[in-house]
Amino acid sequence: LDLFVRLDRNSGISLHAQLEDGLRGAIRDGRLRRAVELPSTRALAAELGVARGVVVEGYAQLRAEGYLEVSPRGKTRVADVAQPGPSAPAATAGGGPPLRYDFHPGLPDLDGFPRARWARSLRNAVKDLPGAELGYGDLRGAAVLREALATHLGRARGAVAEADRILITQGFSEGLALACQALRARGARRIAVEDPSLPPLRAIVADAGLEPVPVPVDGEGMRVEGIERIAADAALLTPAHQFPLGAALAPARRAALVEWARDSGAYLIEDDYDAEYRYDRDPVGALQGLAPERVVYGGSASKTLAPALRLGWLLLPEELYAAVLERKAFAGPSPVLPQLALAEWLLSGEFHRHLRRMRLRYRRRRDAIAAALRTRLGDPEIEGIAAGLHVVARLPERIDGAALALAAHERGVGIHPLGWHRVEQAPGESALVLGYAGLGEREIEKGIDLLAELIRA
Amino acid sequence: LDLFVRLDRNSGISLHAQLEDGLRGAIRDGRLRRAVELPSTRALAAELGVARGVVVEGYAQLRAEGYLEVSPRGKTRVADVAQPGPSAPAATAGGGPPLRYDFHPGLPDLDGFPRARWARSLRNAVKDLPGAELGYGDLRGAAVLREALATHLGRARGAVAEADRILITQGFSEGLALACQALRARGARRIAVEDPSLPPLRAIVADAGLEPVPVPVDGEGMRVEGIERIAADAALLTPAHQFPLGAALAPARRAALVEWARDSGAYLIEDDYDAEYRYDRDPVGALQGLAPERVVYGGSASKTLAPALRLGWLLLPEELYAAVLERKAFAGPSPVLPQLALAEWLLSGEFHRHLRRMRLRYRRRRDAIAAALRTRLGDPEIEGIAAGLHVVARLPERIDGAALALAAHERGVGIHPLGWHRVEQAPGESALVLGYAGLGEREIEKGIDLLAELIRA
Repeated sequence: LDLFVRLDRNSGISLHAQLEDGLRGAIRDGRLRRAVELPSTRALAAELGVARGVVVEGYAQLRAEGYLEVSPRGKTRVADVAQPGPSAPAATAGGGPPLRYDFHPGLPDLDGFPRARWARSLRNAVKDLPGAELGYGDLRGAAVLREALATHLGRARGAVAEADRILITQGFSEGLALACQALRARGARRIAVEDPSLPPLRAIVADAGLEPVPVPVDGEGMRVEGIERIAADAALLTPAHQFPLGAALAPARRAALVEWARDSGAYLIEDDYDAEYRYDRDPVGALQGLAPERVVYGGSASKTLAPALRLGWLLLPEELYAAVLERKAFAGPSPVLPQLALAEWLLSGEFHRHLRRMRLRYRRRRDAIAAALRTRLGDPEIEGIAAGLHVVARLPERIDGAALALAAHERGVGIHPLGWHRVEQAPGESALVLGYAGLGEREIEKGIDLLAELIRA
Repeated sequence: LDLFVRLDRNSGISLHAQLEDGLRGAIRDGRLRRAVELPSTRALAAELGVARGVVVEGYAQLRAEGYLEVSPRGKTRVADVAQPGPSAPAATAGGGPPLRYDFHPGLPDLDGFPRARWARSLRNAVKDLPGAELGYGDLRGAAVLREALATHLGRARGAVAEADRILITQGFSEGLALACQALRARGARRIAVEDPSLPPLRAIVADAGLEPVPVPVDGEGMRVEGIERIAADAALLTPAHQFPLGAALAPARRAALVEWARDSGAYLIEDDYDAEYRYDRDPVGALQGLAPERVVYGGSASKTLAPALRLGWLLLPEELYAAVLERKAFAGPSPVLPQLALAEWLLSGEFHRHLRRMRLRYRRRRDAIAAALRTRLGDPEIEGIAAGLHVVARLPERIDGAALALAAHERGVGIHPLGWHRVEQAPGESALVLGYAGLGEREIEKGIDLLAELIRA
């Protein structure tokens, strides 16, 4: 038996624990088979050179755990249950070659995240927090953050915001899921979604039990004329900067949507994902400000700070708040420390200073990609307003965007064909979605150069 | 119009933004009504004493946001949509009098959380993190934490653990929800649950679409004889320390459960919520170690560190991993920084030093509450093993635990009657669930004194 058990008196692990580990392992992997009788405690203790109590304790532990049992003859033996069959090798997560130039949209410049300053805010948050707030916390989110966000959303986004209408979530994704679940529970069945739009968000909507009904997008945003005919109970849209096509929702369409929502009792879900970045003028205010009683407004720090923080929020109509909070109760409250750090950033002005720095950086990068597209890629049409962290470039029609994206990936250049975001496919479409936030100006040029080479080849 | 707009040149806010805010507010609250025509830009600029461009820009912004529109006569007027009806006063969250002696079970000693050390770990985590890891991150959780947990769960809980089978979650609640959703998607309908058990966990199970089937608990844990007759597809249980009754699941029942799971294809969900705290011997190893292919093991740092961190994990059978990960994709990854801090704590031994300190503290508090119950409350029977953060005290039968809990709450003493945790109610039951982790020894005595007074009254 001591083949299975190597006791090390200097390991810092108690002898009986070592004995148990050795026996457990041997039983599990079949070296000790079921019904095998073990030596008496006295015999094994002698064999291993340990006090008998060590073996007594070890056997008792493994009996308690079910690995060993006492036979009808009063002997300790290996129990029946502990031997599963062989298992297949572990599955590993998918990968692919690392990208040298990653133009996939959706991420801010992660190297621009001010780590030291954030760490300081976290430290202050931990230091000052009353013990009681280390519990499960306020399901709605920390009051200080909800207050700070209410002020911020009122000022920066023209929203009608109160702390009591705000719910802190794990990024916008959780907020969208909770809102859709609450709407579904109130009887909603269909939700208008922009086409194109972000596929994972459409998946979240569908997972909550709502049927996404695609509505085409043009240079003025979602084409809302006739929306009443699709009999939707809600609409999910990106009014400040349509993702991915880049339009700001036109005023007449804002009015039409609000009118439709009021007349039909539908809700508008406003995904305000990157309104902080507008380079030619002030951002257009939130749709929520027009109709706080019909709009579920969602935002996050994923584009302004970092997605890894998982900080998002909903600003909700009063009549939906309790229903959404009920859904949040199943997910549990969000971690409190990053909430307190973000509140400090908002209240101290650090958040706005950070945004100003990043806005300048992104504007330079936007100019760089526009110049590179102009000089190296035949000056394709660039759609949408001067805003955000990505551009849509419409290449000459002979180019198939999906094929180009595949070829580019093999050369270490990550791009999304516009078709990746579409519900109704337009095969062979040439347009690309290019995120530029995470690449320096030289990298942008080199990446576009590589694309140009591929197109010429 | 300047009644609605007060421009302050020293506010640091641009004049056009002030103009917009003033008009927005006036439109929203009805001071400016729909179809009202505004003065020309020239006239308003003169009235306010600002450059005409300020007003042009302000009007354009509010047209873009939908508050203003251009009338058929070419005049700027208040648009239709911007005036919701009055809304009711904000709802506020429930409360109740603050508790002086809070014996509600479920929380560790939050004042014992080593804030400074945790803050240091967070700072190190932020400092050393490659920019790329500030993105959406690994949906499974940070690799370094999964590796550290695999080692820890193998050593401390006798689990068969590999990093590739671990999924980091937002506390155990999210893990339970994801596991139940995945089982439901594979066709599961019914899940055996312990009675009594924690009501919020039963609610999570039901919310995922599984019907909870209560199975009684006795001094050996869940009464599993005949479990095959209830035709459940899974069972949720607390093998190391039944919550709330306090038994360790007996070896024969472990074997029977594993046999049932193997024969029927059911899964066992092991809620290992407080196994770190055993005062009389080593904790009984995890059920998962007996049948890693049938057990979904769930744990968290909520009882060892603090619930506010929202750190939990699942250790999953290989054949369930992909299905549970698919559910996690809808919830989004967990925040990365606390994961890295916990990994550092596990790898550096800090976690175990912290546990040793807390174990001593809780053991003293357990002794204190046992003594107080003995000397002040007529020596009621205390159920369960010497473990965890709560006791169940069975008072004389004439006492109604639910009535006592209500009366105690008014005196600032928080207790749970055992009945609060039951599915099948036993009206008038006298037993109480008393959490002692967050109270000092003197507080414990005083709180039990108050209970004794109430009982005598």
